[in-house]
Amino acid sequence: MPVTLTDIRAAARRIAGGVYESPCPDSIPLSEITDCRVACKLDNLQRTGSFKERGARNALLRLPPAQRRRGVIAASAGNHALGLAYHGQLLGIPVTVVMPDYAPLIKISTCQRLGARVVVRGRDFTESRAEADALAARDGLAYIHGFDAPDIIAGQGTVALEMLRQVPDLDAILCPVGGGGLIAGVSVAVKSLRPHVKVIGVEATHTGNFAAALRAGKPVVVKRRATLADGLAPLTVGANAFALARDRVDEVIHVNEEWIALAILRLVELEKTVVEGSSAVPLAALMAGKLPALRGKRVGLILSGGNIDPAVLGRVIDKGLVHDGRLTRFTATVTDRPGGLAGLTRTIADSGASIRDIVHERAFSGPDVFAVSAVCTVETRDHAHVRALHRALKKNGFPLRRGR
Amino acid sequence: MPVTLTDIRAAARRIAGGVYESPCPDSIPLSEITDCRVACKLDNLQRTGSFKERGARNALLRLPPAQRRRGVIAASAGNHALGLAYHGQLLGIPVTVVMPDYAPLIKISTCQRLGARVVVRGRDFTESRAEADALAARDGLAYIHGFDAPDIIAGQGTVALEMLRQVPDLDAILCPVGGGGLIAGVSVAVKSLRPHVKVIGVEATHTGNFAAALRAGKPVVVKRRATLADGLAPLTVGANAFALARDRVDEVIHVNEEWIALAILRLVELEKTVVEGSSAVPLAALMAGKLPALRGKRVGLILSGGNIDPAVLGRVIDKGLVHDGRLTRFTATVTDRPGGLAGLTRTIADSGASIRDIVHERAFSGPDVFAVSAVCTVETRDHAHVRALHRALKKNGFPLRRGR
Repeated sequence: MPVTLTDIRAAARRIAGGVYESPCPDSIPLSEITDCRVACKLDNLQRTGSFKERGARNALLRLPPAQRRRGVIAASAGNHALGLAYHGQLLGIPVTVVMPDYAPLIKISTCQRLGARVVVRGRDFTESRAEADALAARDGLAYIHGFDAPDIIAGQGTVALEMLRQVPDLDAILCPVGGGGLIAGVSVAVKSLRPHVKVIGVEATHTGNFAAALRAGKPVVVKRRATLADGLAPLTVGANAFALARDRVDEVIHVNEEWIALAILRLVELEKTVVEGSSAVPLAALMAGKLPALRGKRVGLILSGGNIDPAVLGRVIDKGLVHDGRLTRFTATVTDRPGGLAGLTRTIADSGASIRDIVHERAFSGPDVFAVSAVCTVETRDHAHVRALHRALKKNGFPLRRGR
Repeated sequence: MPVTLTDIRAAARRIAGGVYESPCPDSIPLSEITDCRVACKLDNLQRTGSFKERGARNALLRLPPAQRRRGVIAASAGNHALGLAYHGQLLGIPVTVVMPDYAPLIKISTCQRLGARVVVRGRDFTESRAEADALAARDGLAYIHGFDAPDIIAGQGTVALEMLRQVPDLDAILCPVGGGGLIAGVSVAVKSLRPHVKVIGVEATHTGNFAAALRAGKPVVVKRRATLADGLAPLTVGANAFALARDRVDEVIHVNEEWIALAILRLVELEKTVVEGSSAVPLAALMAGKLPALRGKRVGLILSGGNIDPAVLGRVIDKGLVHDGRLTRFTATVTDRPGGLAGLTRTIADSGASIRDIVHERAFSGPDVFAVSAVCTVETRDHAHVRALHRALKKNGFPLRRGR
């Protein structure tokens, strides 16, 4: 079942008015840190927070009338479920989503609020999928695959039509790759309309489905490892998606967890936008220097979704601050006599750093019973400030070892 | 020096192409939590992260040719400095900014990177302003006031022209108020074009310049208290801004720090966008239930800027998670015999909560020398989950007191 430019154009007409044509502004600060001319397609601003609405609405609108009345079903722990639930409600099509046990409570309750019937079943995706198939057979529901159904792929391709129009001089599009539905649609649209525009897929090092499929010549099951880019972690790339994308994608690259975390932080502080890990991989690839050929070029990043758990975002920000030298931890040795800690905190304050917390440890401080360890976590300006703080501490009689 | 609709329209033509016409998408999730039909004007996506570029570019373009060559100056610790620096560079106009000692290093270095001459001088804004006036006199620079110059006010008004076009059925615009430049421009535009559209100013309880001016009948100096909305904290509202806005603004309301923090978190998790505290006050006002008359109405929120320190954002997220019952702390009493802590952590894990940190205190645990306190910080799903966790702990023999 090939998907063509005609299908994608038809999908664009079909979903117009129902899916937000998200902006694709230039980003001067991101251009500066990457040496490219960067524009960000803000599909994280879709109403349920991801590009998945494009395919979901297109697939729902393609159902025959009888099936629209009976409804649809899908297994999904995430954005596909939200997209289906939302557009099903708008279109009056009953939607059932089967979510695995580990699905975040917030996504379960959001799907319910959007009017979907939610069945929580299965310790992993395979079990949820089996349950969904059983319900589909029993109730006559159409199963809508999250990344391999041709109508889904055609819908996702609409994001590329918009980008080519919004940024006419684009040299390359960087696209996150998980199940492959997005890059399949994008690569069909781009290579039909502007074959010279590069389509570059980006995976997390901990996922790597598409690269594995390229090596094997077909989709293969890849062992999953925990990743911030959990949206890129289906067990395998889709067969239809792979068949469409394999010869149209110019390159597939990988980024590690550290770069993904730092890219999320840079999008927050420079682009003022919130993305989930899977949507940060394109920027991470540029920041990690993986694409030197794009230097000076006009590069579009697909920010595909924004549904990150705020607690995870908080941790990512802290890790990024440590990387930047804006949060640092050290252990100083202090005398256990009155005034020891006062002298330490005074030295920190005088250096312009701000104390976030101090743990004062007596028992594990080494052989000298009058020397105590103080594990200090402080906010600093940058790495130079951290070094200046270390020098000031040593000079004032507080020997230190870095970290814990 | 009155500012009229004609001035604002002229400003819009003047800055077109140089300032980003930011999108103003509807927000379904924010509409749900506020019972209004909310659209957010994303001026935090401006290239230097705030609406201040509008007035800055307009004021720069209005300079006579000789003054353009000599250049401009302003005292500012923040967004006005960034806006002037950026557009000065684009237009080839020399810009000097005088920043107080406490200006964040990141804003100083960004202004320098944007080509401005940066003078760091003054323990407060008044001292920086005096330095700027001295330099202006010495070097023949034009001083551009950040919120009271008529060209600045006219430029800020362009945001309202865009909103009225982008959301034609608007019932009300909620606008942050600090120095008053933004609400002056917005209220002139709105009341000239669509007088029935309400213009509501929102201040932080810790600032309150505009309300104080309304009470006194003229701008008065208000005592500053620390606030997340530090962008709203000039010493006084501007005289021109106040004269323009006082009879055009329908209402001025106040929001406290807790609501501002929670509004920042809701914008991150629901709108996928990053704002500084001063830009969260409109949503905070709706969330706090301060505007019951707007229930069901079409409300535009001006998200005026996104330049929040990521470390502050991290703290705001944590506070918001505590408010939501998604982060909780309690002190449990554990036996000091082997297995005590193991039993506690097992009970927490079985309840589905995730431990962020535990501090195990022996010395301050009360009279029983075999009972030890464990201060636990854990991630939970919601308040109901916190209550279930507390019940499980008690049932398993871990008496607890909440908090520290």
